[in-house]
Amino acid sequence: MMAPNEPLSTSILVMMYFGDVVFAVSGALTAARFRMDFLGFLMVGTVTGIGGGTTRDLLLGRTVWWTQDPTELLLCAGASLATYFFISHDLSHRKGMIWADALGLSVFGVVGCHVALQFGSPFVIAVFMGMVTATGGGVIRDVLTNTQPIILCGQLYATAALLGSLSYATLRYLATPEIPAEAIACLAAFALRALAILYDIRTGPPGEFIRIGQRDP
Amino acid sequence: MMAPNEPLSTSILVMMYFGDVVFAVSGALTAARFRMDFLGFLMVGTVTGIGGGTTRDLLLGRTVWWTQDPTELLLCAGASLATYFFISHDLSHRKGMIWADALGLSVFGVVGCHVALQFGSPFVIAVFMGMVTATGGGVIRDVLTNTQPIILCGQLYATAALLGSLSYATLRYLATPEIPAEAIACLAAFALRALAILYDIRTGPPGEFIRIGQRDP
Amino acid sequence: MMAPNEPLSTSILVMMYFGDVVFAVSGALTAARFRMDFLGFLMVGTVTGIGGGTTRDLLLGRTVWWTQDPTELLLCAGASLATYFFISHDLSHRKGMIWADALGLSVFGVVGCHVALQFGSPFVIAVFMGMVTATGGGVIRDVLTNTQPIILCGQLYATAALLGSLSYATLRYLATPEIPAEAIACLAAFALRALAILYDIRTGPPGEFIRIGQRDP
Repeated sequence: MMAPNEPLSTSILVMMYFGDVVFAVSGALTAARFRMDFLGFLMVGTVTGIGGGTTRDLLLGRTVWWTQDPTELLLCAGASLATYFFISHDLSHRKGMIWADALGLSVFGVVGCHVALQFGSPFVIAVFMGMVTATGGGVIRDVLTNTQPIILCGQLYATAALLGSLSYATLRYLATPEIPAEAIACLAAFALRALAILYDIRTGPPGEFIRIGQRDP
Repeated sequence: MMAPNEPLSTSILVMMYFGDVVFAVSGALTAARFRMDFLGFLMVGTVTGIGGGTTRDLLLGRTVWWTQDPTELLLCAGASLATYFFISHDLSHRKGMIWADALGLSVFGVVGCHVALQFGSPFVIAVFMGMVTATGGGVIRDVLTNTQPIILCGQLYATAALLGSLSYATLRYLATPEIPAEAIACLAAFALRALAILYDIRTGPPGEFIRIGQRDP
Repeated sequence: MMAPNEPLSTSILVMMYFGDVVFAVSGALTAARFRMDFLGFLMVGTVTGIGGGTTRDLLLGRTVWWTQDPTELLLCAGASLATYFFISHDLSHRKGMIWADALGLSVFGVVGCHVALQFGSPFVIAVFMGMVTATGGGVIRDVLTNTQPIILCGQLYATAALLGSLSYATLRYLATPEIPAEAIACLAAFALRALAILYDIRTGPPGEFIRIGQRDP
């Protein structure tokens, strides 16, 4: 057995569990699009929920937390199976899902950065790990379902996670207490992502750094 | 160097080596479909053979066994190269391969669960790790060859591995000795997979939990 | 925090940094082909640069070096962003890139083998790890961009890395001093890859082990 990790504060745990459920449902909805069976929902949903944090822990050499305490694994599995059994055939309430996903993205960026800082990572690494935690699950989901990762060309998706992670690390570096730092950083990430969704702000390839609104048809 | 793992019992080792060879050949046959060269056979075959166990060990924080003792690496490499050099152009003896694969799946589910329990994992995690060990190699093979993972929509494939893993963990929890527990759990997994192959039993998307036999044309 | 790794010699560090930059640029050029935004360049470039070494370290159970010292992460990120901002629209100077990539491949094979040997890996494992280090980043890049890994069917690509790695391990086993061993092994790998490029030497599927020059049309 590996050494147990240091315990996480309640606010971080709440954010983490929230993000787990949101991403597990998002993964399960992807499984629905590919008409997978219940184990497909379970696997893709669970991997989307815990994939980002797992990648972070493997890279840091930290014990992968859910292999010691199955809470998160069961939470993700439960959310995925609930999606399988209770999903309506009509997926048009996608709007709620996009906003929930934006919230999940924001909290995971902060959680990932917090975990890395607590583990003793340097500033730059901790910021990077926040982005990895927030986007890793989605990348694995897209690789598993054989589609090009959406984070690599979306509406300030990874950028928002990066902003949240960077804000949190900076605030903590300036000795801001944990709870306000968490709140401000989450809000910053969420606000950026919300603006990007509302005004269709996208970053583009070389020569087209940023673009607001649709191209002319 | 990391701490060495606890030694595995002979019956587990036999099952593990058998699974390695079966999955390496299965991976190499996939390489054949894509007309890869000998290194493609070597890489895809080897990764399919040792990928599941490697994923399990990385997640558990256990030393990846084949980095200390090259036996399994060489076994998988040998099986892959043998497939390259001796494969007949006609792949029609696929029937034997499907049954060998079903056996490999069954033993890997039990081996993975056993390794996790021996490492000290909780019940739920050990069951999950059995499924990861049995299906991980195939998932990596499918990701590498850019096809959608077959386990996510097949004939009770991951389900059979899950049944074997769950049976083994339960039997061991009830203090059944190792050898009978292994035999019963393997048999349970193999029987389920065999039934699914013979009667074309598939699990389906929401609203179509399970389906037996072909749809009407 | 995990235990720090043993320090690397200057010649290995120089080769490593060179390889990082070459592969990061190669990854960023792939991002350009898919018209990704600056974060896409950053992620795909960085992952291509550090992906091989990271895979090796995870498998070996060695601390992933860039999580302790951000030098390499920043180097890869910088090279990727420079590609984003300064890339000409015309990518036709691909010739220089192919030769730089061949050099990167050669040095990474030797670096990976050296690191594994220094970590205490057996001969066979160290040779394998050299190939993993040299080709891993490219495989992850191809998986992320949803294309079939090029190493699995190219012009003696992985083969050249394997030759370099094998040469280095053999020379070191024969007690050749580090610098000459590095130079000879790099040269061997580069020479093989250069021949393969110049004369279009490819290895093929079963029944067509090796092929020189184009097929008749």
